[in-house]
Amino acid sequence: MRLPRPLENLIDQLQKLPSIGPKTAQRLALYILRLPSEEVSQLARALIDVQERVFPCSKCGNLTDSDPCPICSNPARLGNSLCIVEEASDILSIERTGYNGRYFVLNRSFKLMDDSDPAEMNVQPLLRILNEGKVQEVILALNPTIDGEVVSRFLATAISGHNVKVTRLAYGLPIGGDIEFTDEITLRRALEGRKEF
Amino acid sequence: MRLPRPLENLIDQLQKLPSIGPKTAQRLALYILRLPSEEVSQLARALIDVQERVFPCSKCGNLTDSDPCPICSNPARLGNSLCIVEEASDILSIERTGYNGRYFVLNRSFKLMDDSDPAEMNVQPLLRILNEGKVQEVILALNPTIDGEVVSRFLATAISGHNVKVTRLAYGLPIGGDIEFTDEITLRRALEGRKEF
Repeated sequence: MRLPRPLENLIDQLQKLPSIGPKTAQRLALYILRLPSEEVSQLARALIDVQERVFPCSKCGNLTDSDPCPICSNPARLGNSLCIVEEASDILSIERTGYNGRYFVLNRSFKLMDDSDPAEMNVQPLLRILNEGKVQEVILALNPTIDGEVVSRFLATAISGHNVKVTRLAYGLPIGGDIEFTDEITLRRALEGRKEF
Repeated sequence: MRLPRPLENLIDQLQKLPSIGPKTAQRLALYILRLPSEEVSQLARALIDVQERVFPCSKCGNLTDSDPCPICSNPARLGNSLCIVEEASDILSIERTGYNGRYFVLNRSFKLMDDSDPAEMNVQPLLRILNEGKVQEVILALNPTIDGEVVSRFLATAISGHNVKVTRLAYGLPIGGDIEFTDEITLRRALEGRKEF
């Protein structure tokens, strides 16, 4: 039996989304078919809205619907600390730690695999912020990957003339982890970074 | 940090869908935000379309965008066999078995838990089909649950005057299952339904 075309089309569209396979897509589509039509309109509207009204903050690159974003425009946020992240979504995670400084989003996270050269990164927006003279510490919070490491080193070099402290997140054992099952690179980093008890 | 409101709204909307939790909703919303806008419009359009253009077949209740549905209007389908299912989505599963008869969808599957009485079910549409005199066998393919059982019995009684054979799907061991881990009710049904080897 062929499915009604609009239903097949919706299943196809849903399947393009991450973590949604054919079975889930079918279940979602049949569920959506039975929803009250105003709820479906709201969902459709929300999809369009998010693209029309959410954009990167012109200052830090955070996702926002007002420019500058609520973090950049919040006077209670400490301006002397600048946390550099790969993606705006990383900000959500760091916010949960209680960090109260500001951010800078690199966006389109730099991939070594793409054959691209970190030297081609546009660091001017970052340097402009540092030139304002408020930032005293740059915290490199890139992903603990080879790419993250390479870009971190490149950024550290680019910043080096600016008389700011450059730090990066600690590497080590994840809390709740198990030494037996920790990979050797993490364990080596945890050893190297050991602290007095 | 509060998320931009349109993003928060989309996450809320996505979370209402089955099998989508807060983490998945956030991931989907951030993914959608980065999609080309024409893809998002297509998805939004597909959502609206499915509700506007897919409806139950007036004859059998199958989901369709043309009335009668492709199964009811297919002359190669055998009209002497009528498979009764709870939901239109059950048809998709039965179609995969190669069944070549017709269907009848009860819809809004009957729930005993709702305090409703099977006697209140509207069986007239089903009886109208039987009165046409083509159907020789009614296959009850309701879910193997107490509700399914109660409704099946009720339907069998309602049909009994119509000189058609009434059958139901076999209960027993699911293929690939394990007797050790099969629940006692299923196993008892498998014993009761044993066949000569």
